[in-house]
Amino acid sequence: MTTEPLAGAATRTPTARPMGPAAHGRVAPIDGAVALGDGTLGRWQRRNREATIPHGILRLETDGALDNLRRLIGESDAPWRGLVFADSDVHKVLEAVAWELGHGEQPELRAFYEEAIALLGRVQDDDGYLDSAFQRADRVQERWTDLTTGHELYCAGHMIQAAVASVRALGDDRLLQIAQRTADHIVSTFGGADAEGYPGHPEVEYALVELYRLTGRREYLETAQAFIDRRGSGWLGRGGFGSIYYQDDTPVRETEIMRGHAVRAIYLNSGVTDVYLETGDDSLLAAAQTQWDDMVTRRSYVTGGTGSRHKDESFGDAYELPSDRAYAETCAGIAAMHWAWRMYTATGDLRYGDFFETALYNVVADGLSEDGTHFFYSNPLQMRADHISGQQEAAAQRLDWYFCACCPPNLMRTFASIEGYLAAARGDELHLVQYTAAHIEAQLEGGRVVLDVETDYPASGRIRIAVAEGAGADLVLRVPAWATGHHLTVDGRVAAADVVDGAIRLAGALAAGSVIELEFDMTATVLTADPRVDAVRGAVAVRRGPVVYCLEQNDNEVDVESLALDPGAPIAATGTATELGPVLEAGGVVRSPEGALYASWPGAQPAQRTAPLRLRPYATWGNGETGAMRIWVPAVSA
Amino acid sequence: MTTEPLAGAATRTPTARPMGPAAHGRVAPIDGAVALGDGTLGRWQRRNREATIPHGILRLETDGALDNLRRLIGESDAPWRGLVFADSDVHKVLEAVAWELGHGEQPELRAFYEEAIALLGRVQDDDGYLDSAFQRADRVQERWTDLTTGHELYCAGHMIQAAVASVRALGDDRLLQIAQRTADHIVSTFGGADAEGYPGHPEVEYALVELYRLTGRREYLETAQAFIDRRGSGWLGRGGFGSIYYQDDTPVRETEIMRGHAVRAIYLNSGVTDVYLETGDDSLLAAAQTQWDDMVTRRSYVTGGTGSRHKDESFGDAYELPSDRAYAETCAGIAAMHWAWRMYTATGDLRYGDFFETALYNVVADGLSEDGTHFFYSNPLQMRADHISGQQEAAAQRLDWYFCACCPPNLMRTFASIEGYLAAARGDELHLVQYTAAHIEAQLEGGRVVLDVETDYPASGRIRIAVAEGAGADLVLRVPAWATGHHLTVDGRVAAADVVDGAIRLAGALAAGSVIELEFDMTATVLTADPRVDAVRGAVAVRRGPVVYCLEQNDNEVDVESLALDPGAPIAATGTATELGPVLEAGGVVRSPEGALYASWPGAQPAQRTAPLRLRPYATWGNGETGAMRIWVPAVSA
Repeated sequence: MTTEPLAGAATRTPTARPMGPAAHGRVAPIDGAVALGDGTLGRWQRRNREATIPHGILRLETDGALDNLRRLIGESDAPWRGLVFADSDVHKVLEAVAWELGHGEQPELRAFYEEAIALLGRVQDDDGYLDSAFQRADRVQERWTDLTTGHELYCAGHMIQAAVASVRALGDDRLLQIAQRTADHIVSTFGGADAEGYPGHPEVEYALVELYRLTGRREYLETAQAFIDRRGSGWLGRGGFGSIYYQDDTPVRETEIMRGHAVRAIYLNSGVTDVYLETGDDSLLAAAQTQWDDMVTRRSYVTGGTGSRHKDESFGDAYELPSDRAYAETCAGIAAMHWAWRMYTATGDLRYGDFFETALYNVVADGLSEDGTHFFYSNPLQMRADHISGQQEAAAQRLDWYFCACCPPNLMRTFASIEGYLAAARGDELHLVQYTAAHIEAQLEGGRVVLDVETDYPASGRIRIAVAEGAGADLVLRVPAWATGHHLTVDGRVAAADVVDGAIRLAGALAAGSVIELEFDMTATVLTADPRVDAVRGAVAVRRGPVVYCLEQNDNEVDVESLALDPGAPIAATGTATELGPVLEAGGVVRSPEGALYASWPGAQPAQRTAPLRLRPYATWGNGETGAMRIWVPAVSA
Repeated sequence: MTTEPLAGAATRTPTARPMGPAAHGRVAPIDGAVALGDGTLGRWQRRNREATIPHGILRLETDGALDNLRRLIGESDAPWRGLVFADSDVHKVLEAVAWELGHGEQPELRAFYEEAIALLGRVQDDDGYLDSAFQRADRVQERWTDLTTGHELYCAGHMIQAAVASVRALGDDRLLQIAQRTADHIVSTFGGADAEGYPGHPEVEYALVELYRLTGRREYLETAQAFIDRRGSGWLGRGGFGSIYYQDDTPVRETEIMRGHAVRAIYLNSGVTDVYLETGDDSLLAAAQTQWDDMVTRRSYVTGGTGSRHKDESFGDAYELPSDRAYAETCAGIAAMHWAWRMYTATGDLRYGDFFETALYNVVADGLSEDGTHFFYSNPLQMRADHISGQQEAAAQRLDWYFCACCPPNLMRTFASIEGYLAAARGDELHLVQYTAAHIEAQLEGGRVVLDVETDYPASGRIRIAVAEGAGADLVLRVPAWATGHHLTVDGRVAAADVVDGAIRLAGALAAGSVIELEFDMTATVLTADPRVDAVRGAVAVRRGPVVYCLEQNDNEVDVESLALDPGAPIAATGTATELGPVLEAGGVVRSPEGALYASWPGAQPAQRTAPLRLRPYATWGNGETGAMRIWVPAVSA
């Protein structure tokens, strides 16, 4: 068992640790500290602290989520507002604030933190129940009556995760006491062998595993396992969307494909992997691996996005990956990061870090505006100029909040704890999984190491690792699958190292004074999709490092819908930089289609002339005037 | 004014006339009779009578739509079942039955007809209100309180249309009396200059115009016009889907694009065109024409289907036309037939008959199984082998009914009255708009004509028209835009006739004893789409006459997802026939894609070998074992 000590003020570190050490983990979170420096992730974390989280706190106030709680104790007479899971918005912001207060005090965040915890404590019922949607006088009889759509376990899971953050970041167990009362209530209600039921929206599973990691109380793990073991019986009922939507059509261990609501499906698999990580139940890991492979080889976007359908926010059929109607919910991207990290933890295989990275710098980063206060809910790969939609989740531009506000606070807690995903330890090895400017201190089996990572990755492929302290432990560096080449020096000497399973191992490299320099070839690559991806047949995409590029109307003088890219022509950097890499210029043509919607083959051949195509990192689009955008561009030959 | 005489038994004819003569029509329904013969439409009408309508009556019974009415008069204690517009299912079946009883008595249909009319009469309130969803004791206070989603005007519209059918087909005005009481109630509630409101789901507009045509009571027309004039103010409220969904974002006369819920948008335009047809308000016709052009040039499928999105059953952006997630609701196809016929009536332009024909033989015909008792709600252009969906409207195969049962009875009333769309009159001209075996008698300005049309169209392109009676009136024949060639003889002599605006005019041809033979070239054509239709880039489709073909797994030995078609290779008929044309064989290759979901361009070149592609009329797919299907097939060059 791997119970974490309750952190007190004395052991407090500035490191967010979004996942605790696992009994069956092949790697473990580092025992030490990671502080982000002036790199992309460091800047994003600062923006999150200074702009996004304060904005979120404001919207919890203006949109009623806090009043929903206050009214239960007579401190607000506002009507109940929002969706049934409005409490989870509070919990997610609270988790983000806890991580950020761990990085340093800030009065505004502290004020929210103190008020929210006090409020939750006062609202909680004597039996531990806490969910404002069902503590309303008119709905109190409905508690636990609708696990399919009621989201009570989902909300509880987010409160538990906030409480875990509060302990890990601040050594503050006040929220933990509240969350444990709720968790104990859940255990007594759903935990027994004779009990039944499991959540319509998975999330509580991995929250309970985390609570087990923190407290060592096995009933939390057992209840998480019970939820997973029971799932797939059709018990949830078909609801409006059917059992598939809820991943309730087949038992977890018999499931081979990702299907149904994407966020639910990925949260579930994160929980499945987490239960494996504590129980060692190989059948769970096998099921997770099979579904992971299905996701990455048949049902995911080049951006790391998942979810091909708006109707039920769901995975589509294999290879059903439309660009324009990509749902690719921000939350699904974040969920995939969680799952990828757990698969890496379970296997020690750094290649899971590739999907994590793809999601982080593309679909997840796209979810947030440069100013940090506007959000995409869905992240399509194409936006036409005259996009029509009356629905928020299909908006042509980032909105400052959503009626279904799951994504914005999910981004907040993600960026507030992102340093927890950079490195991991395995015995006397240190793994560097993600590259960004950071100061890392870690206690490995063989002793303490201190290193500084300097890089402007992913804008640059150059990474400099200076070892300030260390007695010669091994350093393992992820080599992304996209890297067609790399150049490595150790203390100025070129080092030849094999890439095995997506990683380079540098034996003994973590010695004080050592400098490791790794440079990935960041030449832009033209990508093509499996021919079964009908939606992008005849089209190509441009990727530079882990960053997927797009054509945006603002960068191009001609209608981007009329441009075609010559995949054989060179791609050059322009003088315009973005935080994720330079604006690129590719060769191609502009075409003027004319004629009927459907015509006899080969149809009218449109007039065309050569034209440059200016491309920018996908995640940076939409920060100017709203216009057309596309990742997949017709190839000149098509 | 063009008030129709109330048909008495003496004037009863076997002809369904789904639309009456219009004051500003350039053409008019024929004054006479059309009886379908042993052609495709005749067979479909018989199947409808013998299988589909009886099945529908059964489902009205088993699924509660009739009990919903009976319970209001104490004749059922079943709970209220179905969607709020369940009454409209009864009305649509009743309309179909009325048309069919006009063709001939049948005890089962007569029993339903009598019971349903008696039931409606007893259920109706004293003030004329009749809608079982809001006559329930617990909802009676909600009458007319929610025009956005309540569907009361929609249901009333369908009852009015059934009543019109009952009079036109049978000379029976019992249902008309009921419907007029409801219509009068609507006029008094919504008709005044000071009144406000209009329906969230258009349909009542053209029903009221038809009621005006039948009765001459101008207040029905004026109320229809008021509904149209008021629309576009945002009054309906945004609901869950926003004003665009309801076509309430812009006034009708200022609208240039088809947007929002497809059936609503097309029903609305049918009503707009119908109000023009009686008022001569050119601004309405102009708006309808602009939107028609937008639909056919930017937002419709090669099958005549419309609606690109499942989420809100809506039109998509321009050129957003996915095959796999095509919604292409059967009802939208039927609605497009209604609108096309009204546009033809308003302009006399036979080219509107082309879209009517495309919809009829493709998206609408696809909605019904060969056995006549299974239905598609959405009609996608591609179905993958392992299609995943928990929702009825995205089913991989035709279902025997739907919880939202709008489409099945819409098919019933369409096939029951289809002969009303074959021919029209203009002074002393007879227009043949659709080709199928039929006996036609018409009183033209210059006298009576009687003709027999013999054809197996669209399986065959040969049409023989024998004139049994006539004094030399003109015959105008539609020449579809797909017809790359035709051969015409009059009394055995080759006749050269110019095709002007999609039609051939044969002056004086309607003389007794004359025989006109017209043959269209039915060579299969390979089609390509405008390059802006991203979803089918690099793919081609096959059409023969008006019939779009598809690859279906059952006809092909190799995985249809691995086939590519050589658009330059000849396409030959096989020995297998379907009612819409022979199974075809095209040349191409089978490819075995291997490699990553996304790879560096040009990617792995899959091994390929030549292979035949067997294609069948799209509307005939899915009558065997469920499997993959696709209309757009990758071209070998792509």
